Amino acid sequence: MKITGTFLDEITHDIPSNNWGPAEWAADFDAMKAIGIDTVIIIRAGYADRVTFPSRTLRSHVPNVRECYRDYVDLFLREAERCGMDFYFGTYDGKHWLEGDTRRELEINKEFCTEAVERYGDRKAFSGWYLSHELSGYDPAQIELYRELGTHLKKELPLPVLMSPYVHGRMQFDDPVEIEAHRDQWDTIFREISGFVDTVAFQDGQMHFSELPAFMEANCELARKHGITPWSNIESFERGMPIDFLPINWDNMHYKLSITEQYPIEKLITFEFSHFMSPNSMYPSARHLYNRYREYVGGFDESVRRSVP
Amino acid sequence: MKITGTFLDEITHDIPSNNWGPAEWAADFDAMKAIGIDTVIIIRAGYADRVTFPSRTLRSHVPNVRECYRDYVDLFLREAERCGMDFYFGTYDGKHWLEGDTRRELEINKEFCTEAVERYGDRKAFSGWYLSHELSGYDPAQIELYRELGTHLKKELPLPVLMSPYVHGRMQFDDPVEIEAHRDQWDTIFREISGFVDTVAFQDGQMHFSELPAFMEANCELARKHGITPWSNIESFERGMPIDFLPINWDNMHYKLSITEQYPIEKLITFEFSHFMSPNSMYPSARHLYNRYREYVGGFDESVRRSVP
Amino acid sequence: MKITGTFLDEITHDIPSNNWGPAEWAADFDAMKAIGIDTVIIIRAGYADRVTFPSRTLRSHVPNVRECYRDYVDLFLREAERCGMDFYFGTYDGKHWLEGDTRRELEINKEFCTEAVERYGDRKAFSGWYLSHELSGYDPAQIELYRELGTHLKKELPLPVLMSPYVHGRMQFDDPVEIEAHRDQWDTIFREISGFVDTVAFQDGQMHFSELPAFMEANCELARKHGITPWSNIESFERGMPIDFLPINWDNMHYKLSITEQYPIEKLITFEFSHFMSPNSMYPSARHLYNRYREYVGGFDESVRRSVP
Repeated sequence: MKITGTFLDEITHDIPSNNWGPAEWAADFDAMKAIGIDTVIIIRAGYADRVTFPSRTLRSHVPNVRECYRDYVDLFLREAERCGMDFYFGTYDGKHWLEGDTRRELEINKEFCTEAVERYGDRKAFSGWYLSHELSGYDPAQIELYRELGTHLKKELPLPVLMSPYVHGRMQFDDPVEIEAHRDQWDTIFREISGFVDTVAFQDGQMHFSELPAFMEANCELARKHGITPWSNIESFERGMPIDFLPINWDNMHYKLSITEQYPIEKLITFEFSHFMSPNSMYPSARHLYNRYREYVGGFDESVRRSVP
Repeated sequence: MKITGTFLDEITHDIPSNNWGPAEWAADFDAMKAIGIDTVIIIRAGYADRVTFPSRTLRSHVPNVRECYRDYVDLFLREAERCGMDFYFGTYDGKHWLEGDTRRELEINKEFCTEAVERYGDRKAFSGWYLSHELSGYDPAQIELYRELGTHLKKELPLPVLMSPYVHGRMQFDDPVEIEAHRDQWDTIFREISGFVDTVAFQDGQMHFSELPAFMEANCELARKHGITPWSNIESFERGMPIDFLPINWDNMHYKLSITEQYPIEKLITFEFSHFMSPNSMYPSARHLYNRYREYVGGFDESVRRSVP
Repeated sequence: MKITGTFLDEITHDIPSNNWGPAEWAADFDAMKAIGIDTVIIIRAGYADRVTFPSRTLRSHVPNVRECYRDYVDLFLREAERCGMDFYFGTYDGKHWLEGDTRRELEINKEFCTEAVERYGDRKAFSGWYLSHELSGYDPAQIELYRELGTHLKKELPLPVLMSPYVHGRMQFDDPVEIEAHRDQWDTIFREISGFVDTVAFQDGQMHFSELPAFMEANCELARKHGITPWSNIESFERGMPIDFLPINWDNMHYKLSITEQYPIEKLITFEFSHFMSPNSMYPSARHLYNRYREYVGGFDESVRRSVP
């Protein structure tokens, strides 16, 4: 099973920037395309006071919004178009939803996404919506957020809506969820958001490696039961190291790939190519991960390897 | 507004070494010069049991002083001379001042700086003193340290004295200072050290980005009121990430540059070039930050870019 | 005194992977050989549910063992043979010994090491055993582990047995051991494991730099008293930084080298070459450390430097 999608990591709160301009991003889209990536998902187009395009919505709603240096949404759309890829637009994360103010989160987000449609809705690559609010357990306010925002997005531009939740697992949390409780909660969540969300790509790095099969089976089964298409989000960074977060050990990625292909996953995406498995990454071990992956999926082409700067 | 000065980061307690020898340092001074840097400031010439030149003062005062592998002060002076730059000598930080023993800190430091004048005082590039003790709030013992050390330095070699304090801000501290309390304290500090310190370059990374304008305005106004020349120290590393400290996101640096140029800052220096914005840095994203910065200030020369190893 | 041995860092729990395949490992063995390394020690051939070769022992004893992508033991043996190096096999660390179950740790380990002898015992480079359980103070259960496992290893293949303990020192622990207590405990430990362990290479990074001479003297004297050959394990990574663990500052490594050569150490090994002092490391500052080290030991050959990719 090949990885055919990746998040684009402008903006993040925990991954440092590669500091790329248009030329470096173009090289990276080439590297994505060379391994068969056909889908890119901007993880969030705005985050608190930060933004990836010159948004009048955030200017009016967010005091001291920090303007972006360039229009990253336009840049990514252009590259996706050049490379024949689908682009998913990640919604605004204002953090208001984490502070109990779902209404404000919704209000800004709806205006922000409408603005995005006005600016970019006719772009050829614009192919889907990504709900940037990461869920892990049942919360009525979050369901409301998903339903109302999902409805709005589909009204503005009737495209598939993707989510990428996480498991409250033992690699990250001291009070990890048990598989049965996870199953119960997600049965409810999927029932309530079905119709508003089309595709779910669970993150695969929060549970222990040995628990991955059980969670993957449950997640696939529950998604299909509620008519949601199961993708999977294979994390390409390592967890649980003194230095968080560096490119994953190829042995660990290979293990996760070998598990994933045993389940009826329709598409495999990763968080994320450009830092953790790109030959252009600020982390040199990512280049080797890229080469390991290419050898594994076949078609490793030595000339491409040599062309890497 | 261009960055025309940088700290040199031998010795530090929190930034790992690039492990450069003379050839690599020469290449890095070339890279500095290429973007217009005309001033280098060694952040401290000695630190507890470590030292940047073979100092008889530390040998006699510090048990188990760790000798340096080479004379970094001589190396940096030579490079500064070759590149036509000003060199500022950073005083000894024995940590005694942090433990309440200002007298011992002063005693060693005066002898150490006198030794530096004997060794390097006639070097063409030797152009200023840097007080390595970083202040943030009012403390009478620290004022005494600054007055007595500043007097000594000017007596030994009448050159400008620079300081680079930090704001006790919310990006680093749980009990951040409010702007008014900051203003009150620095009004007092500047009044008491005026005449002993010529130039102040506040670090710009400890407050939230949105607070930068208010602090920058206050700092400029207070410095000028007391006859001290305001520079600014734009931090080129990112704060508040799981990995501390990596090169700053260009968008964040651009934001800070755009704020800085709105205030009557006389010179912009950075902490620091060689790790965080150098094409030669151990952090590959620093090379891209260098390219982004060069594109921004103009004069980006593709041939220089290609000559980077 | 030159570094002539290094650990191989598959598997570790705290150092991220370089993600190398056979070609990259071959290049790194060349780089090792170029500075005179003649001994490689795999730090552990198995660790909890992870393993470096396809082991039927772990398959039968460890539920959900994660198979390795390739046989690293075979790969390392092949490279060691090509380069004329000695290979030490590191035992399994099942973590049971840390949870009080010495019997289970022994049971799996004996079968695991017997399997290793069956698979690799006739390989030319197979030259020694490394006890992967790191001791620091006296513990009767650990002595039992060492005696019974050491006896088993020597019965299976009568080769030298190496250990690499650590000092419970102030660079890592809040309750550092004093030199006298350290001396007393290791007098007892060495007495009880003499005959089962041939060589001891204390890690040199946990004490403060200024304490290194006293600990090195004690460790050499105690080892020789009990007929154990003293090596030393010079750590090539930096401790006590916000980012753990990056390549060590050359000044610090030079200091430790200068101390080490004052004591009757028979061989100097490092943890470890491929991440922290290799020209091929994921950490660019390791390449510069390699060059600094080569300049220091002499025979720095510019053509080798240029051949580095």
